Amino acid sequence: MKIGILGGGQLGRMLIQEALKYDDDFYTLDPSLECSCASISNLMQGDFNDYETVLNFGKDKDIVTIEIEHINTKALEQLEQQGVKVVPSSSIIKIIQHKTLQKLFYQKHQIPTPDFQIIQNASEVDFPFPFVQKLDKGGYDGKGVQVIKNENDLTRLWDAPSVLEKLVDIDKEFSVIVAKNESGEIKTFPVTEMVADPKLNLLDFNICPAFISEDTQLQIDAIVSKFISAADSAGLFAIELFLDKEGKVWVNETAPRLHNSGHQTQEGNYNSQFEQFYRVIKNLPLAEVTTRGFSGMLNLVGEENASGTVVYKGLEEVLKRPNTYVHLYGKKETKPGRKMGHINVLSDNREQLIQELTEIKALVKVSAK
Amino acid sequence: MKIGILGGGQLGRMLIQEALKYDDDFYTLDPSLECSCASISNLMQGDFNDYETVLNFGKDKDIVTIEIEHINTKALEQLEQQGVKVVPSSSIIKIIQHKTLQKLFYQKHQIPTPDFQIIQNASEVDFPFPFVQKLDKGGYDGKGVQVIKNENDLTRLWDAPSVLEKLVDIDKEFSVIVAKNESGEIKTFPVTEMVADPKLNLLDFNICPAFISEDTQLQIDAIVSKFISAADSAGLFAIELFLDKEGKVWVNETAPRLHNSGHQTQEGNYNSQFEQFYRVIKNLPLAEVTTRGFSGMLNLVGEENASGTVVYKGLEEVLKRPNTYVHLYGKKETKPGRKMGHINVLSDNREQLIQELTEIKALVKVSAK
Repeated sequence: MKIGILGGGQLGRMLIQEALKYDDDFYTLDPSLECSCASISNLMQGDFNDYETVLNFGKDKDIVTIEIEHINTKALEQLEQQGVKVVPSSSIIKIIQHKTLQKLFYQKHQIPTPDFQIIQNASEVDFPFPFVQKLDKGGYDGKGVQVIKNENDLTRLWDAPSVLEKLVDIDKEFSVIVAKNESGEIKTFPVTEMVADPKLNLLDFNICPAFISEDTQLQIDAIVSKFISAADSAGLFAIELFLDKEGKVWVNETAPRLHNSGHQTQEGNYNSQFEQFYRVIKNLPLAEVTTRGFSGMLNLVGEENASGTVVYKGLEEVLKRPNTYVHLYGKKETKPGRKMGHINVLSDNREQLIQELTEIKALVKVSAK
Repeated sequence: MKIGILGGGQLGRMLIQEALKYDDDFYTLDPSLECSCASISNLMQGDFNDYETVLNFGKDKDIVTIEIEHINTKALEQLEQQGVKVVPSSSIIKIIQHKTLQKLFYQKHQIPTPDFQIIQNASEVDFPFPFVQKLDKGGYDGKGVQVIKNENDLTRLWDAPSVLEKLVDIDKEFSVIVAKNESGEIKTFPVTEMVADPKLNLLDFNICPAFISEDTQLQIDAIVSKFISAADSAGLFAIELFLDKEGKVWVNETAPRLHNSGHQTQEGNYNSQFEQFYRVIKNLPLAEVTTRGFSGMLNLVGEENASGTVVYKGLEEVLKRPNTYVHLYGKKETKPGRKMGHINVLSDNREQLIQELTEIKALVKVSAK
């Protein structure tokens, strides 16, 4: 089958890599000829935010999907009307694309999400401090999100359509990945715990399975169940969650696609999120997703003050370690904070796993020539 | 780095698939534009048996390797002299390529191999019945090999340079894959047991780890050790072995490359033969190769009387089974006996594994439209 992917980044690359086990033909749409999917797919250079470009890219494909949500949903809607299979549906992508619509979606379906106010511009602010401002559109990898603690911070408020959200007193952050195929089969990966780097606001470590109480698991199960029912679309979704200090679970946000918080499934689970997503788009029986012991993931991001042809320092040391798996994304150029790859680690023991991730983090540097 | 592979078949495809975790550029040389590596490498259409073609293909590569041994070794020799890194060395490929040289190599290095006579033509036969005739060159997937039981069979003896080999009274067949990098590090995969299909003479099931006595393991260890020392080259080698009914282990033959008998390492071991071979050619620290329980493999070969666009029957049923992994080779056309893919199965239990492989074999058919 001809499968078209909007976006040619690392998520698409790892999807195609996994799906090489099957016999489909992959097409990608990306503005860069140097993107991660360039050498392993039929790449069309173009803007996935442009209506005509997306329509033109998708019209002769059997299936169109995404590896980034900031794409032109109007074109996907049109493709659906023309009979092209689009997974996930244009309507759920559109809801998730807009932080405001996403919040209203949670509210409507009684999915626990922190209190909020929607504003069109700065003059409308009427919300107690401290709060988080999330821009309606374009947020990604922590961009478009800021904390406003008090009156003084208001000077840096973005004057644009946004959600203002109550700041949760976070105890822990989790992510859960759920997949549903067109036949209605649903499978949920074990919950992952995320440990963030406060500086870059990018994921730092994932640990899976998360160490959680039965009560927390039940709250998460209820959220997943409500979400996947309300989404009303085949797809693979990553639901990011906060556990507050009083033991309540809140949805932070959802991605309608493959997600950084699922990378350790590549070796950590009987099947990875990439295998599962492939099965979703082809409407195949969903794969078994249980874990094979503990697994963890560490992002490899471009060092501060390093731009240019990438050089990975310490990688050979890492390759000497058992149960350690290096995944690079085929990007030739690094810049500060750019996601260049990740490292997965397996362990029988959670403490040992965290120790190993910490040691590996100290070993590797993503610098430039 | 620019890595060139002679051959663009499934072994190359699965190598590149695995190596997409790293950042190299892969180039393949194959006569067919429809080969398994076509969509995921820079493919040069050409004959890997032709001196000029191989030389031209290899001259601007950092590393040249193979995924089939029937290639022009003179050109590889020339590339080595020009400073191109060739793994494994042209000399060991040449020895293995010729069944006669391979036999003399075993004899010279006291590697146990059945008694033999080398003949240039049919008139030279002077060897007790029954024996196996192996053509000096071009044998592959059971082709170029026949059993001569008695005088009457002599009428179908091939009149060509060959090895005549004593027919071993086989109890079991094993394979062992050993890797050595340029730094001299050596790692050996656990022994795999092979269950052959007498009709097609292709591998049917692999079971790993093999159920063997300590004595058998010691004999195999000694063979591996002598072989890898005598080969005097970085590389990954699959040594095919017979255990006779008196408990003695004999080398049948060796492949200087990735091998069908190692396919179940993809999910069955902490790292696969593909990951290991990548590390060999890049001279990286070798990977941990222990098994994660029992694993087995079943080849998907084209059914008799079916030629044309391939259709896999029963594959959805297979995908419903846990611990079962389908690997297709991106081949659009099937023909009788053609290797189209394989299925790996994991289990905690050897009997269960054989049962599952047998059930799966009954489920799937490789037919044509």
